[in-house]
Amino acid sequence: MILSALLTSVGINLGLCFLFFTLYSILRKQPGNAEVYAPRLVAEGKSQQSSNFNLERLLPSAGWVTRAWRPSEAELLSTSGLDAVVFMRIFIFSARVFTFAVIVGIFILLPINYMGKQLSLDFLDLPNKSLESFTISNVDDGSNRLWIHFSAVYIFTAVVCYLLYFEYDYISSKRVSYFYSSKPHPHQFTILVRSIPASSGRSYSETVERFFSEYYPATYLSHWVVRRASKLQGLIKNSKRLYRRLVNLKSANHDRERFGRAGFMGLFGERVDLLDHYEKKLEDIEDNVRAEQSSCLGKEVGAAFVSFRTRFAAASAIHMQQGVNPTQWVTEPAPDPEDVYWPFFSASFLKRWISNLVVVVACILLTVLFLIPVLIVQGLTHLEQLEIWFPFLKGLLRIAFVSQVITGYLPSLVLQLFLYVVPSIMIMFSSIQGYIAMSQIEKSACIKVLWFTIWNIFFANVLSGSALYRVEIFLEPKNIPAVLAVAVPGQATFFIAYVVTSGWTSTSSELFQLSTLVFNFIKRNICRKYDDEFEVPSVPYHSEIPRILLFGLLGITYFFLAPLILPFLLVYYCLGYLIYRNQLLNVYAPKYETDGKLWPIVHDSMIFSLILMHVIAIGIFGLKKLPLASSLTVPLPILTLVFNSYCRRRFLPMFKSYSVESLLKKDKEEQNDPTIASFHERLATAYQDPALLHGGYSGNSGNSASIIAPLLSTAEVDA
Amino acid sequence: MILSALLTSVGINLGLCFLFFTLYSILRKQPGNAEVYAPRLVAEGKSQQSSNFNLERLLPSAGWVTRAWRPSEAELLSTSGLDAVVFMRIFIFSARVFTFAVIVGIFILLPINYMGKQLSLDFLDLPNKSLESFTISNVDDGSNRLWIHFSAVYIFTAVVCYLLYFEYDYISSKRVSYFYSSKPHPHQFTILVRSIPASSGRSYSETVERFFSEYYPATYLSHWVVRRASKLQGLIKNSKRLYRRLVNLKSANHDRERFGRAGFMGLFGERVDLLDHYEKKLEDIEDNVRAEQSSCLGKEVGAAFVSFRTRFAAASAIHMQQGVNPTQWVTEPAPDPEDVYWPFFSASFLKRWISNLVVVVACILLTVLFLIPVLIVQGLTHLEQLEIWFPFLKGLLRIAFVSQVITGYLPSLVLQLFLYVVPSIMIMFSSIQGYIAMSQIEKSACIKVLWFTIWNIFFANVLSGSALYRVEIFLEPKNIPAVLAVAVPGQATFFIAYVVTSGWTSTSSELFQLSTLVFNFIKRNICRKYDDEFEVPSVPYHSEIPRILLFGLLGITYFFLAPLILPFLLVYYCLGYLIYRNQLLNVYAPKYETDGKLWPIVHDSMIFSLILMHVIAIGIFGLKKLPLASSLTVPLPILTLVFNSYCRRRFLPMFKSYSVESLLKKDKEEQNDPTIASFHERLATAYQDPALLHGGYSGNSGNSASIIAPLLSTAEVDA
Repeated sequence: MILSALLTSVGINLGLCFLFFTLYSILRKQPGNAEVYAPRLVAEGKSQQSSNFNLERLLPSAGWVTRAWRPSEAELLSTSGLDAVVFMRIFIFSARVFTFAVIVGIFILLPINYMGKQLSLDFLDLPNKSLESFTISNVDDGSNRLWIHFSAVYIFTAVVCYLLYFEYDYISSKRVSYFYSSKPHPHQFTILVRSIPASSGRSYSETVERFFSEYYPATYLSHWVVRRASKLQGLIKNSKRLYRRLVNLKSANHDRERFGRAGFMGLFGERVDLLDHYEKKLEDIEDNVRAEQSSCLGKEVGAAFVSFRTRFAAASAIHMQQGVNPTQWVTEPAPDPEDVYWPFFSASFLKRWISNLVVVVACILLTVLFLIPVLIVQGLTHLEQLEIWFPFLKGLLRIAFVSQVITGYLPSLVLQLFLYVVPSIMIMFSSIQGYIAMSQIEKSACIKVLWFTIWNIFFANVLSGSALYRVEIFLEPKNIPAVLAVAVPGQATFFIAYVVTSGWTSTSSELFQLSTLVFNFIKRNICRKYDDEFEVPSVPYHSEIPRILLFGLLGITYFFLAPLILPFLLVYYCLGYLIYRNQLLNVYAPKYETDGKLWPIVHDSMIFSLILMHVIAIGIFGLKKLPLASSLTVPLPILTLVFNSYCRRRFLPMFKSYSVESLLKKDKEEQNDPTIASFHERLATAYQDPALLHGGYSGNSGNSASIIAPLLSTAEVDA
Repeated sequence: MILSALLTSVGINLGLCFLFFTLYSILRKQPGNAEVYAPRLVAEGKSQQSSNFNLERLLPSAGWVTRAWRPSEAELLSTSGLDAVVFMRIFIFSARVFTFAVIVGIFILLPINYMGKQLSLDFLDLPNKSLESFTISNVDDGSNRLWIHFSAVYIFTAVVCYLLYFEYDYISSKRVSYFYSSKPHPHQFTILVRSIPASSGRSYSETVERFFSEYYPATYLSHWVVRRASKLQGLIKNSKRLYRRLVNLKSANHDRERFGRAGFMGLFGERVDLLDHYEKKLEDIEDNVRAEQSSCLGKEVGAAFVSFRTRFAAASAIHMQQGVNPTQWVTEPAPDPEDVYWPFFSASFLKRWISNLVVVVACILLTVLFLIPVLIVQGLTHLEQLEIWFPFLKGLLRIAFVSQVITGYLPSLVLQLFLYVVPSIMIMFSSIQGYIAMSQIEKSACIKVLWFTIWNIFFANVLSGSALYRVEIFLEPKNIPAVLAVAVPGQATFFIAYVVTSGWTSTSSELFQLSTLVFNFIKRNICRKYDDEFEVPSVPYHSEIPRILLFGLLGITYFFLAPLILPFLLVYYCLGYLIYRNQLLNVYAPKYETDGKLWPIVHDSMIFSLILMHVIAIGIFGLKKLPLASSLTVPLPILTLVFNSYCRRRFLPMFKSYSVESLLKKDKEEQNDPTIASFHERLATAYQDPALLHGGYSGNSGNSASIIAPLLSTAEVDA
């Protein structure tokens, strides 16, 4: 790639970004799009858009930028929770790292690379200069100037480590103060006990009661045994869907739509009054629900939520092995009631252990072999193949422009589609693994997606060749530096372009929310559904964080190889900071909290990036015939690992659990609080399955009048 | 090596063993050797040997065998503690494993190997048959008979895993029942807190008192801040030595010895009455001790032993992070007061972390590079070198027999000497690492010595070549099976001889206790010291267990390669079982307990041996041109690791700490025990440094009469 080509690409993508910004600033002012661009404000009732038409609505403006910039971190914390703050700290931290990197890289390393003569490309003028001449490949072999790169690697590592330490310290103290300022939450007082041993002639509930009132007589409060309620949940889902359809039918108010066929998909069977038909059906289901609810109460599972009087008692029960057999009475912190995720719940220790193993294997296979099916599908999208499948397109496909677009875009579209489903697959894996909370599942999926991304985007591009070839490289650790030193600089220009195209554009499209916009448009104008119950989305950390961290990895590894990548990354992080702040304030609302537990993932990823840079540096200096520098780099990864191991001892425990000091401080504060008694009462029922509490839409009396009454009233309000 | 040579070697070593047994059975009956062969009985006052001469004393007998055989495991548990039982279980477990291995190996695999024609050695008669023809190397390449070896590997692994599971289960239940039957021990109620934060204007003692009475008001009992007492300990050591010398002087009762020179080593200075001189000196030191003791009380260190009213409270304090900063208020279980080891005690988190790192590095270096200094020293012991150093030996060294013995034995003597000091070095490493208890140090040293042994005896013999070459092999994991498959079978005959010579002889010399015997003889007959205070030794687990486990590793890896090794191993384990039982009953007394925590080391070592066997099998089947068998072996190590990971979840937590159920059961039992109040009182002072409690030999009054009085009385008793 030559410099002018890069500049063209930058220009195009800058243009795209501005287009997105302009469109966003116009579209967000249209009242119909409030649910797309400010669902959070709509849900909170803060959306102050008048539906009156005025000219200002059609003019682009940059007011959202200042509004996104203005709130302090404390305000962000109070509105979006600690996870959002931690998420924004990734941008702040990365911006700091790359500000330093830009200064060193652009003002010191870049001129040195450019002055080299290794690639002997100096007959070209600047715009036609290959980007290679800005990389370390252009420095002469054995040149003493490489010592500047060597020092830069050392200094950069020191700076990143200092910033990492500072950030870890900052976030862990934030976590503690967030805990101190929190109101009493059920999950702070509750533990989840699994693998309760079955004892003959006694229900699980009695066993739990007996065990905990014997061993924690002073602090044990109550318990709630988990019930197998998947059938009930299915029934309730059905009744909900029917209820929605009834609401729609009422609100449509067309007699034409009121009559239809009762059979499959409304196509078969006799014509009936759908309103009557659905009402009857809903009633049937609700009867079933009530029958199932009472039978469910008997279907106990060997797991229970056990609540204690104090946070300290709950924490001490979590940390100690309860039963003599460590595979029984397994305790873990309970998630918040809204955070509990039931579908794959399993009480048995052995079952969970096996599913854990299976998931680990599946995850490794998916990560390593992911590109194989992608390549097969990409092979199927060749022009000839398309012509055979869709003969009527033959004329169209023969047009040069169309064929170029298809051959150019289709393979990458296939890859994008495959990549798009990976986070959901990882979420599924993590939920099978036996996590009980959505937040735990998301955290675990985040780690999986991160490794997946690093392997399938970084290593797959760097080490071209079959998946097995890439795995084999890592089976011969001795050769890794040499292999990487040859392969990584070769992909510098690709990754510069990647940052500009994928990084910049994905961030601005995050602002623009194309898919939600289209979906919303279709729903309103074609399906004519005016659903009151729209859901405010939460940030999909498990797909966003790995992407942001991948760019960090690129920046750190290419810092001394191809410093030209750094300014583009800095722009990416600044853009990201602004845009995600805006989104957090307007779009996303937190559904559950991990209380900042995502930071250790960021920290580990940064350490991995540093080590990768060091390994490449060892290889590069060897390749550049400066073996002394190569050997002198060897202590650097070791020192970094030592630093990391210190951080793990110093900070990681604070992200795992709270200290006795913190727990008892909170407990003592509430000792004389009169509201704590009522909170304790509420604890007893906090963890009941919502399915068991479902009261039904048709009311308990069960007559059809009570169904129609609320429906009519909502229809009237809508009108 | 040919069969007849092996048989000769077996014969010689059998002869040596019988010689040792005969000598032992005679020498142990001599009253002067009671301190060597039954120090435990002597210390317990159970030694029933008459000093009257009778003929029976000179006749060898086998009575000790039945006496060693007779006691049940329960009796052994009550006299020697759980660690001794666990130690004996290693022999029982290994004997079971190798009984099965012998049946399969000798009756199935050996004939198959022998019938092979690969090595075409069948022109020799049986006695001259090379031992190679009994190994897998003799089976024809690609022969279907190798499938029998393949099945043997699978079945053997299954049997070993079953036995491992059974044994883990057995020992963990023993551990729990041992805990249930234990009397209240101070260490069960106490924790060690390190890294107590210094607060201005308050002593550590006050900080601890304030912290624990605030956070554990109901259960906190007392604390004892650790003092820096190394100077005091030195002084007390001196006073103890002087006191001993005084005792000796008194008991000798010779006027000739009573006068001597007061200067360096009794060679210089004026002649004085030594009795007076020493008495005065002792008094001076004792004065210093008292002064130091009172000053020591002020020298507090940021660490304390904190005692609680119940075991449960102590355990819960261990398991939870106390302070907000995880590097402060670091808690760990306190060792038994007699088990505490002070010299390298460090309260600071950072210091311990760094010394830990340093020790890990030092330990790896020692293990990997150990053979380099050995080889250098061995090089120096060549005959020519000796002739240059000791010219007067020239004539002697020229005699063929002498030179053969020297060239044959000196290098192995050098190796043995170096190996002899390794366990002590590892003990030193572990104590620097910051363990506070002798038992923890021993356990950690045991692991270090085990890896050292496996690397420097197994791998150094198998993979001949420089240390760096051996390390490099493990840096290319892909080639390991092939390299091992070539190298390991080649050393089969060496290791068979090793089991017979080193294994059998070392075990019988353990019975014979040559060094203690010689030391005791010199002490009694040459130095004429009759020291009352002789110490009963405890089993040096850290040097014994690794040796026993190495033989297990040899047996498991050579099981299908060279089954001829198996009967010799079985004999070794049976011998060892008898001899160590005898030693535990007569010689060794437990000084401290790890409560069976050594078993997980044994388990891990066995799993490692199995995996090593699988890796070799993968390589061998590939080498023998049976690639299908090679691929089908791959799942085996994975299954074994899965099995191991299950065992780690199922049993390992039981070896780390006791469950709430067990702790509270013990606590409740003692609730109404009237003696527990006095036990609580004793807890307050249980962890005082013995140096601070030292009352002095000269009594508190400090006049010399009080020194001489006890001395005289002991001298009179001796006479």
